[in-house]
Amino acid sequence: MPHTYDIKVRFYELDPYNHLNHSAYVQYFEVARIELLEDVGYGMPRMAELGFHIVVTGIQTRFLASAKAGDTVTVETTVVKIKRVTAQWRQRILRGDEVLATQIVDAAFTRPGGRPTRAPGGFVEAVSKYSADVLEA
Amino acid sequence: MPHTYDIKVRFYELDPYNHLNHSAYVQYFEVARIELLEDVGYGMPRMAELGFHIVVTGIQTRFLASAKAGDTVTVETTVVKIKRVTAQWRQRILRGDEVLATQIVDAAFTRPGGRPTRAPGGFVEAVSKYSADVLEA
Amino acid sequence: MPHTYDIKVRFYELDPYNHLNHSAYVQYFEVARIELLEDVGYGMPRMAELGFHIVVTGIQTRFLASAKAGDTVTVETTVVKIKRVTAQWRQRILRGDEVLATQIVDAAFTRPGGRPTRAPGGFVEAVSKYSADVLEA
Amino acid sequence: MPHTYDIKVRFYELDPYNHLNHSAYVQYFEVARIELLEDVGYGMPRMAELGFHIVVTGIQTRFLASAKAGDTVTVETTVVKIKRVTAQWRQRILRGDEVLATQIVDAAFTRPGGRPTRAPGGFVEAVSKYSADVLEA
Repeated sequence: MPHTYDIKVRFYELDPYNHLNHSAYVQYFEVARIELLEDVGYGMPRMAELGFHIVVTGIQTRFLASAKAGDTVTVETTVVKIKRVTAQWRQRILRGDEVLATQIVDAAFTRPGGRPTRAPGGFVEAVSKYSADVLEA
Repeated sequence: MPHTYDIKVRFYELDPYNHLNHSAYVQYFEVARIELLEDVGYGMPRMAELGFHIVVTGIQTRFLASAKAGDTVTVETTVVKIKRVTAQWRQRILRGDEVLATQIVDAAFTRPGGRPTRAPGGFVEAVSKYSADVLEA
Repeated sequence: MPHTYDIKVRFYELDPYNHLNHSAYVQYFEVARIELLEDVGYGMPRMAELGFHIVVTGIQTRFLASAKAGDTVTVETTVVKIKRVTAQWRQRILRGDEVLATQIVDAAFTRPGGRPTRAPGGFVEAVSKYSADVLEA
Repeated sequence: MPHTYDIKVRFYELDPYNHLNHSAYVQYFEVARIELLEDVGYGMPRMAELGFHIVVTGIQTRFLASAKAGDTVTVETTVVKIKRVTAQWRQRILRGDEVLATQIVDAAFTRPGGRPTRAPGGFVEAVSKYSADVLEA
């Protein structure tokens, strides 16, 4: 089951086309991943305490329809793969039933200096409630 | 030959890791594409006058190394393909010789209402100076 | 009674000091004013339909304490004065009982072209539930 | 003589009014102050090495006219007062001769933990080239 998080579109995030700028979708996806982490006990303050960074190494994002002023969108997030030092996430942004954007994110666990490292102990188990082999894209 | 555009990293774009947040790279890439358009006579004000929008439909971005406070980076942009109503761009962000990020962007030409349309007359010729079949990724 | 709106701090809004950058407070204040407008039936889509813009002409902002990763803050907004073509707002950002920032905002109603104009009919009555002569700063 | 720094307006910073959002002016002002600091040898990386933060404690900003797509603006910055642990700056954003915005900024020097402290040794002398008793607002 994906994690879900609602975000209300902000006026200053809209561009002169009256569309949510595509970089704002990328930000919403990040916001939602961090909410998932917090939800399972690995929010950014705790990750910092434990001495871990999560660094995005790649994204593949498709923009299907525009969010606009006044919209509240839902970001769905699923952890699809955790390997030794990397994790892959799948995400979607929806407005009601309409898919506005999809994203595959590759991220790496690192130490503050940048050295790749395994996920913190207990992390894989913690996120398993939002893990899936498949998320309909 | 790619179009090049220099951008100085801004303090507020850095995150608590002291890294340029990955969404800021996506913004830099957009800034550089718009500079290319302006350079060839199709800047955003002119596109608006002509009744055209350029809408990003997909990005594939790899983040290889971090930009940090004080850095000036160079964004290289090449138009790799223009089809009837779409264009594909390839971009890189460099700090000196070091590649920090690469991006493939798919974009569509639309009318303000969202209907896909052909590129404005003369557009393909105008961008040809920055077109290429290959950009080393 | 002030309008209140909760905002969760976003990771990318934090700067290398691990503080919410001061420009993000200014954005939060705008978000909250727009929520107040929406709450009383004058959200941005309706204002656009009616042919009105609200343009910020001045802010006086004090930053008293830092928001940080994981914080949820509350933005309080009161409309303190509406004159012919201008409105003055007072706002505070709180984390629990602690005031993090205060702001006085001057804004003008304009037509899309920029010409100052009176507030739309019914506006003053609509916002009166969040109007006050005094908001403790 | 004020420090000057040119900034090209970015498309994603424009809002649906096709105006530079007022929070972006606040960001431009910050960018220019940091450029001034770098210019006199106290850029953010050096300030961090020396163990100093500069924290904005207040701004008074007036927005007089809108920047729009394609504009390049000039930010003028003058340090008007340095007291024991605080500095006051005056800034303007111009498009050619037209003043788009003015700002008075109060900032404090702190240690990373937040404790106010005197400016680093040599700082007052270094910024004196951009100091003034008067900047026409």
